[in-house]
Amino acid sequence: MATQPELTIQGWGPPSPAAAPRDGDLGGTLPRAARRYLSGELGWTPRATPPVAVDEIDLAPSRLAEDVRARLVELLGADNVRTDRESRLRRAGGKSYLDLLRRRGGNASDAPDAVVLPGTTEETAALLATCSEQGVVVIPFGGGTSVVGGLAGVDPDDRPSIAVDLSRMSSVQSLDVPSSLVTVGPGMRGPALEQELGRAGLTLGHLPQSWEFATLGGYAATRSAGQNSTGVGRFDELVTGLTLATPSGVLELGHPPATAAGPDLLGLALGSEGTLGIITELTLRVRPVPATSAYEGWSFRSWATGLAALQQLSRHDLLPDVVRLSDSDETRANLLMASGAGARALRAGLRVRGHGDGCLLVLGWEGLPSMVQARTKAAASVLRDGGAIRLGRTVAESWKKNRFAGPYLRDRLMDGGLLVETLETAATWSALPTVYDAVRRALRGSLTRDGRRPLLMSHLSHAYPTGGSLYVTVLADRDDDLPLQQWLTAKRAATDALLAAGGTLTHHHAVGADHRPWMEREVGPLGVEVLRAVKERLDPRGICNPGVLLPD
Amino acid sequence: MATQPELTIQGWGPPSPAAAPRDGDLGGTLPRAARRYLSGELGWTPRATPPVAVDEIDLAPSRLAEDVRARLVELLGADNVRTDRESRLRRAGGKSYLDLLRRRGGNASDAPDAVVLPGTTEETAALLATCSEQGVVVIPFGGGTSVVGGLAGVDPDDRPSIAVDLSRMSSVQSLDVPSSLVTVGPGMRGPALEQELGRAGLTLGHLPQSWEFATLGGYAATRSAGQNSTGVGRFDELVTGLTLATPSGVLELGHPPATAAGPDLLGLALGSEGTLGIITELTLRVRPVPATSAYEGWSFRSWATGLAALQQLSRHDLLPDVVRLSDSDETRANLLMASGAGARALRAGLRVRGHGDGCLLVLGWEGLPSMVQARTKAAASVLRDGGAIRLGRTVAESWKKNRFAGPYLRDRLMDGGLLVETLETAATWSALPTVYDAVRRALRGSLTRDGRRPLLMSHLSHAYPTGGSLYVTVLADRDDDLPLQQWLTAKRAATDALLAAGGTLTHHHAVGADHRPWMEREVGPLGVEVLRAVKERLDPRGICNPGVLLPD
Repeated sequence: MATQPELTIQGWGPPSPAAAPRDGDLGGTLPRAARRYLSGELGWTPRATPPVAVDEIDLAPSRLAEDVRARLVELLGADNVRTDRESRLRRAGGKSYLDLLRRRGGNASDAPDAVVLPGTTEETAALLATCSEQGVVVIPFGGGTSVVGGLAGVDPDDRPSIAVDLSRMSSVQSLDVPSSLVTVGPGMRGPALEQELGRAGLTLGHLPQSWEFATLGGYAATRSAGQNSTGVGRFDELVTGLTLATPSGVLELGHPPATAAGPDLLGLALGSEGTLGIITELTLRVRPVPATSAYEGWSFRSWATGLAALQQLSRHDLLPDVVRLSDSDETRANLLMASGAGARALRAGLRVRGHGDGCLLVLGWEGLPSMVQARTKAAASVLRDGGAIRLGRTVAESWKKNRFAGPYLRDRLMDGGLLVETLETAATWSALPTVYDAVRRALRGSLTRDGRRPLLMSHLSHAYPTGGSLYVTVLADRDDDLPLQQWLTAKRAATDALLAAGGTLTHHHAVGADHRPWMEREVGPLGVEVLRAVKERLDPRGICNPGVLLPD
Repeated sequence: MATQPELTIQGWGPPSPAAAPRDGDLGGTLPRAARRYLSGELGWTPRATPPVAVDEIDLAPSRLAEDVRARLVELLGADNVRTDRESRLRRAGGKSYLDLLRRRGGNASDAPDAVVLPGTTEETAALLATCSEQGVVVIPFGGGTSVVGGLAGVDPDDRPSIAVDLSRMSSVQSLDVPSSLVTVGPGMRGPALEQELGRAGLTLGHLPQSWEFATLGGYAATRSAGQNSTGVGRFDELVTGLTLATPSGVLELGHPPATAAGPDLLGLALGSEGTLGIITELTLRVRPVPATSAYEGWSFRSWATGLAALQQLSRHDLLPDVVRLSDSDETRANLLMASGAGARALRAGLRVRGHGDGCLLVLGWEGLPSMVQARTKAAASVLRDGGAIRLGRTVAESWKKNRFAGPYLRDRLMDGGLLVETLETAATWSALPTVYDAVRRALRGSLTRDGRRPLLMSHLSHAYPTGGSLYVTVLADRDDDLPLQQWLTAKRAATDALLAAGGTLTHHHAVGADHRPWMEREVGPLGVEVLRAVKERLDPRGICNPGVLLPD
């Protein structure tokens, strides 16, 4: 188990050595043109809204009874049962805008009463049995990167809670090269796995924005998707087997390469978000490190023509491995964020060709040179027929370079009085335009007030033969009096709207506490009852991550 | 709803006009060399073992109480509630070797007490609620092609049973061309759907051997795979949504293109084999009719070198759409079955090149010409590196022409005193050779007796990055005294062996009544408990297809 960098308590990432001073007007963070643009667009007044000092965060005393603590120490050893302030604060909630608002404001009411670190499946199963017997709530903790309140569920019975930190189970257990399968611990992160696989010429290739910190167990528990998932597949497609420790025993699920032996129980554990138990081992499909890769940018005159071209690529099985189509608002903002002569020339060139209000498409292909060449060529022909202009590699490489930067930038924007959050959904190609319009209308309606209005930047981030996902970044002047309510109201309006238009509740962020109120609309009342029946069998006392996924 | 040909009561298919006289020595069915070969290999004495006449089949009187029948008539109309002999016999059991032995011997003890034909989801839901209330067992009936006893479960409470024939729900409900989605009734068959899709230039592309008779609802309920599934995907991957009517209400499952909103409930309905309710509607992913297709044969000197080459193709994402590698026993038998000068020349040519005991590989590519060309070329390079010889198109086209012929031939072989059955599994590339050896050893051990021995012909029928499926055809001299026991003993030995070696209980035939005793070994006791919890919630009185899938 290598030591891995930890996220800060009030934001993203280990503070970068090159971080700008947190001065509120974002002088060190954004180019001047971008600051001016944001002020104009949002009606935003740059101001310093820094977090409280970490030692001012309010943390209630641990409620874990001493006899229970002693039982846990007996089970796991004293080193692996922690109730100190730092351990508890670091496992409080996730990293949504709401999480950060709370933590920056000094509130850690969602912190666990203790943190425990089991080392094996057997220890985890024994821990769950003990907690079930003792009435202690259990919250699995991987990377702590949830943006949907996956770690912030409220127990209706208000029992003491422990975070089960999985960092002691974070190594490769076995590698079956002929079968392209690796078995790993749930606490392992992408970078460590890629490093180990790289030695055998292999890669997993799952690259969500949280890649530096999120864990493999977390990806499975939330049905994650990554930036390359159009090519390599969603994370749920990469999991071929897993071990789930539950209060009622251990499940060993999955049988690669494929089976018809009854309903898919593996698919029940994927996306269970800790409500059925704790994933203690995963077997994943890997592949050879691509021999070559090609990334390039294209431009469309409009969002509609861009979507139409992607739909054509998808129906002919010509989708690249990475597909990312920005709408004109996101394209404009991205081009403004890029400084330098190259960016200015690009903007001017696009204006001349009638794409001044255009939509940027980033595509990436990976694999054997001959296949990348054939796929690129066939796709280019479809794109040109769809009215696209090829922009070349620079703009795509620039996206690639900044692929993990978003959450770091969010901290700086929050320092300057901004609301900044994302939301996502997916819909069929037929429904996608309606969903796009509906979400934007709802967010604009909710966040426009007193001369302030939101900036909504959207992109299609994953494409499938049947449709695509939609990812929206929201910037607005923060309501300093009621910042939580400001976002909760907007989020509610957007979610109602996207569901009504035919979108799914979430394409890759999961349900958590934040989406839970809509779960019944997503799967129906009887669907919820089925999930409850499974939970009652595996977790009869309801200790496993209560307050997320399943509605009350 | 078009009229569709019905399977005969005692065998496969409508009797072909060109069918040979059923004379027992197979003179009209097999070339002389093949007959001689079989006699020598098996110690088989050709003899006439014809089925009893259909009107001699023993059928017990219907046990459906008159008041219940009246309730069903009220619900569905008199035309759609049938208790006549012909209707009941036609829905008795499926088409496994055991099913055929029973039916040919005059036994129809598994016939339902009545056949009902609902026309809508609402009618089906009302029917299930009524049957639950009245204690009537419900067996969904699609094409009646199960080969694992999926229609032959025994109710532990011996209640009256009805077959729910889905042929009235067999049309296209809607077609969303931009999203590549079609919504259909569960009773529709492949040929009818392909005909309708063809008008829009689209295809589903799911082609199992039962294609002429099996239904789309049946594919979903059993997690079917077809001959092109390596390319187009298993049937469970083609289903993006379905409606499941249960005794407790209706579930609407699935949200294309993809979702992270909790565990996969759609995956629970797929493979549920009628034990949770009845599928009344399906939404399926379709694709454009391929612009071109290329099929070709290759030869390997051995099974091991063939597997190694397929494993190389799979890890580099170079698998063709159709992949079928025969072992040397199947290759030899296939070449003997093919008569004519071309076949003789092929056999001679292979002998000269040291492939006299070789393994035939059939590959097929479909899609855009430029992509088929690039994929074919890249694959050929890997195959040649793996020691393969290209045989050209003839042998592959011949396989394609006969792709649905197997079950027709089975009837003729059964007329001549032969045991003829298939079984299948799947395993990782690492485990596959061990599974292959274990299954063959078990079958040989069980079926070798008194100078008689089995002929085992195997092929890998579906390839995945992580492994492949194994399909074994078994021929042996039938034990005329205890034919059922002869196969049950062999099947038990083979299943124990393949599970112990790491194979899955079934790759695409499903569980049914035949594999049910091993279900706990496949998913574990707690896995069975989870399935039971779901069933108890949806089907509290256990009326839905009892005696299949879930062990006692």
